[in-house]
Amino acid sequence: MEKSDIVIIGGVACGCKAAATLARRNPNLRITLFQKEDDLSYATCGLPYFASGDVDSFRALTETSYNVVRDVEYFRKSKGFNAVTESEVIEINRIEKKVKVKDLKTGDSYDHGYDKLVISTGATPMKLPIDIPKTDRIMPFTRPEDARNFRKLAQTGEIGSALVVGGGFIGCEMAEATASLWGIETTLVEMENQLLPYALDEDMAIPVAKEMEANDIKFHLNTAVTEFELDDDKVKVKLSNDEQLQVDYVFLCVGVNPASHLAEAAGLELGESGGIKVNEYMQTSDPDIYAGGDVVESIHQITGKPIYLPLGSIANRHGRIIADHIAGGDEKFPGVLGAFMIKVFDLNAGSVGLNQRAADEAGINANSVWASFVDKPDYYPESKPISLKMVFNPEDRSLLGIQAVGKGDVVRRIDVFSAFLQNKARIDDLLDFEHGYAPPYAEALDPLYQLGAIAKSLEHGFEQENPGNDYSRGDFILLDVREPEEVEALPFKAENAIHIPLNDLVDNIEKLDKSKKIVILCHRGMRSYQASHILKTAGFEHISYIAGGTTLAVKSLA
Amino acid sequence: MEKSDIVIIGGVACGCKAAATLARRNPNLRITLFQKEDDLSYATCGLPYFASGDVDSFRALTETSYNVVRDVEYFRKSKGFNAVTESEVIEINRIEKKVKVKDLKTGDSYDHGYDKLVISTGATPMKLPIDIPKTDRIMPFTRPEDARNFRKLAQTGEIGSALVVGGGFIGCEMAEATASLWGIETTLVEMENQLLPYALDEDMAIPVAKEMEANDIKFHLNTAVTEFELDDDKVKVKLSNDEQLQVDYVFLCVGVNPASHLAEAAGLELGESGGIKVNEYMQTSDPDIYAGGDVVESIHQITGKPIYLPLGSIANRHGRIIADHIAGGDEKFPGVLGAFMIKVFDLNAGSVGLNQRAADEAGINANSVWASFVDKPDYYPESKPISLKMVFNPEDRSLLGIQAVGKGDVVRRIDVFSAFLQNKARIDDLLDFEHGYAPPYAEALDPLYQLGAIAKSLEHGFEQENPGNDYSRGDFILLDVREPEEVEALPFKAENAIHIPLNDLVDNIEKLDKSKKIVILCHRGMRSYQASHILKTAGFEHISYIAGGTTLAVKSLA
Repeated sequence: MEKSDIVIIGGVACGCKAAATLARRNPNLRITLFQKEDDLSYATCGLPYFASGDVDSFRALTETSYNVVRDVEYFRKSKGFNAVTESEVIEINRIEKKVKVKDLKTGDSYDHGYDKLVISTGATPMKLPIDIPKTDRIMPFTRPEDARNFRKLAQTGEIGSALVVGGGFIGCEMAEATASLWGIETTLVEMENQLLPYALDEDMAIPVAKEMEANDIKFHLNTAVTEFELDDDKVKVKLSNDEQLQVDYVFLCVGVNPASHLAEAAGLELGESGGIKVNEYMQTSDPDIYAGGDVVESIHQITGKPIYLPLGSIANRHGRIIADHIAGGDEKFPGVLGAFMIKVFDLNAGSVGLNQRAADEAGINANSVWASFVDKPDYYPESKPISLKMVFNPEDRSLLGIQAVGKGDVVRRIDVFSAFLQNKARIDDLLDFEHGYAPPYAEALDPLYQLGAIAKSLEHGFEQENPGNDYSRGDFILLDVREPEEVEALPFKAENAIHIPLNDLVDNIEKLDKSKKIVILCHRGMRSYQASHILKTAGFEHISYIAGGTTLAVKSLA
Repeated sequence: MEKSDIVIIGGVACGCKAAATLARRNPNLRITLFQKEDDLSYATCGLPYFASGDVDSFRALTETSYNVVRDVEYFRKSKGFNAVTESEVIEINRIEKKVKVKDLKTGDSYDHGYDKLVISTGATPMKLPIDIPKTDRIMPFTRPEDARNFRKLAQTGEIGSALVVGGGFIGCEMAEATASLWGIETTLVEMENQLLPYALDEDMAIPVAKEMEANDIKFHLNTAVTEFELDDDKVKVKLSNDEQLQVDYVFLCVGVNPASHLAEAAGLELGESGGIKVNEYMQTSDPDIYAGGDVVESIHQITGKPIYLPLGSIANRHGRIIADHIAGGDEKFPGVLGAFMIKVFDLNAGSVGLNQRAADEAGINANSVWASFVDKPDYYPESKPISLKMVFNPEDRSLLGIQAVGKGDVVRRIDVFSAFLQNKARIDDLLDFEHGYAPPYAEALDPLYQLGAIAKSLEHGFEQENPGNDYSRGDFILLDVREPEEVEALPFKAENAIHIPLNDLVDNIEKLDKSKKIVILCHRGMRSYQASHILKTAGFEHISYIAGGTTLAVKSLA
């Protein structure tokens, strides 16, 4: 029986990173990596962009920056370890410390011994609870072959219409890919009442839905597929809302599960999510077996609770932790914050930490503030909007999470906030934040600084309204303090609206009824905040303003 | 004598922010702001972009986002305080708690009493130690009138050539403004041996200089102006390097001094820099007098030492601290980290914290690492390079500062690093950073994570060479591990160069002389790092690699 010091199962993100790092740290180790597929170390997260045509060839996803394919030879010569492809590990024998490998080319099986084993088998697509007819027209979208299959059909012009099942990350990315680059008539169905249901609160998902609509994606929320039926090259689809569709292609993007069957069969402990349980060194319940990447369960840094978070960036970091520990180091994986980004047409959306719903579910005292900004000063060319929602604990002022959407620079705010969360920062710390300021990059006061100030303003009695609510009717006066041109250009549907520009408010305050609740609206929220102050000073008692203004409260726009 | 609860001297960034915030916090206060100029609350940092034509009108710099000019009426009606323009405060009487105001329209003077006084008088241009002839063709660039003056002349086509004296922020911005948007033949002189001498280390300033050169800016480093002479509409300029120029316009961008004469005359304590000394509440040595913005001296958060840092973003934050303290709050200004950003043609450059030189001067044990990255995966469209230099304390692994240059997304890394510095983070914390990852925004591993890994690699015996050095000759073998196409496209000038692509290194290692020092080169530094490992494993002892690769070591490119 052949034996290696280190055997690694799975060669995409975590596996290859662990192998390369370990080979560098300890060149005397014999490291063997088994990969079921032919491709190694491909950029899984790039698959939607290969499918869309943004990325020309699949090869680009497997190449280094200097156009050398990351294949068996590359890993041997440049990275110092052995990769064996088209070889599936089908069994782990923990007692004898060996794995059984099936050579997929010959069908033969053989044993291979290990001192330390790394499981990085990734994830497998979740299955819908209905029958899926066998056809290359109804496919998940997680593997290179899925992307190749779609692109082959799309290139020959055979796909005029497509259905995306699932409005999570991959679903939203695929909807854009099909509609924007191939001009395919695209419909999306999602069982929850919003897009990106686990990443964003409902109110922050509305701008994403609006962007989809603006780009001619049809979608059905609160809707499931109840039946697929093949009709020649067409797929007939029945939905739970009794609608029927006929499309040329169906993407099943309903999420993934950890591919933990091997680990489970070997008696390793799994978590609630089905992911392998690991400690901070990425060791499983067997200390000679490590696991990382999409196959493990993570711990959330804020809640301290298990969470399943399959992300390529995290998988790579797992790889380093595993290598470091095997090499005798003491680096620890700190748990996850759940940072994510997604591009949907021209809109950028992202989040890190807990959203309001997640905080509520975790039983954490949480409050939210929203605001809209521009990513550069208004006077600077190509200044674009961003809207943010920050979740925090009003008791100890600790930061819990942020969500951001807009055509402007969203990712910078997600990343900076992630650094603050990692450092267990408080609202007060945002007011101490010193950002890199110059007009081509930022406003003089950073959006996170401003959010900190807004959160503190709640302590001074200012009140925000959730921009995701419907303001078309209700028991309040809507005071629109925008300029006449703005109101004309972007009407806001609300009964009982009265329009007084901010600069005229002091002189026209008698036009407002002090006994009524007054909800104030402007473009981004700042004028409404100022108007709240003016009304408070004038003795009004029931005042609030729509957070983020018309930039964020897009539901009530005409 | 009229009297206000609060008198504010100066109405640009800090003064207006303090007044508006205070009016909101305590509407019962009578607040009066005196401004020498006619314009209020204009975006000083936007002046170069108005001069260049990027920003159409000066009015845009004085407007709110909804096109209302921030004038006396706006501040009274929307912000709740009185601003009095064209009125210069010429004396502070601390005993009687009053200021003497000169009405610049009538020439009359009058007294105005205060309970609390705020000094936000900004900065004035530093003077060259030579005679400056009186002409509208040799001007500083700090005030609206400077920008208007230049633009008026530029628009009429009267300026074919210009000299920028000083290679700091404003100097570099003006060089771009004149050359790129007006097509003016532009020369820049700088007394120090590099551009942006206080913000960047010499090696990180080289790419900025290269970008200037590529855009036809001529410049002289280590050079001073020794004489100006007028010749009709031309300015004849003598330089310390004995060259002579004749230009149509001269920008004096040699820095600014705090405009602290009023404070000094009133006996308030000044710091070494000439800026007003303030405590963490922005109180001067007289607790009834606050000061903020470009007129005060700051304390650096890392060195704990005084520093003069005139920046609009910081001035705005000062305004809030002052208002909060007067209103009875307890917010403190934490000191500065010195974050800055600058756009020079297509290049973005920035820095936060200490550079190597500043750390050395402060007597802090400091080491640097460099690396080059792309801001998105190579396979993703419009992926652009960024190069970073991180300064840290190798003893306790604390972070000290970062510098970044490149056509890619620089500002995000400056901002995230600033958050880490604020939180007194260590190298290890960078390895715990969870960034918002998706191919349109980032690589799977964040550049800051990678820098953390590189810093730790030094502890494992890897050695970097400063990319700012000259590698054209020296007692070493330059091992270029790039692919043949890369070497051909971007030749690197070095004697004793040998070219072996990384993937061929293991098989050709006998071509290298073990007794010689070997310096390794690639495109970004990562392959060289890997090649260092391969040589170490093969028993080589004198190995190092050029940090950041050809992306950063631009000095030695052909």
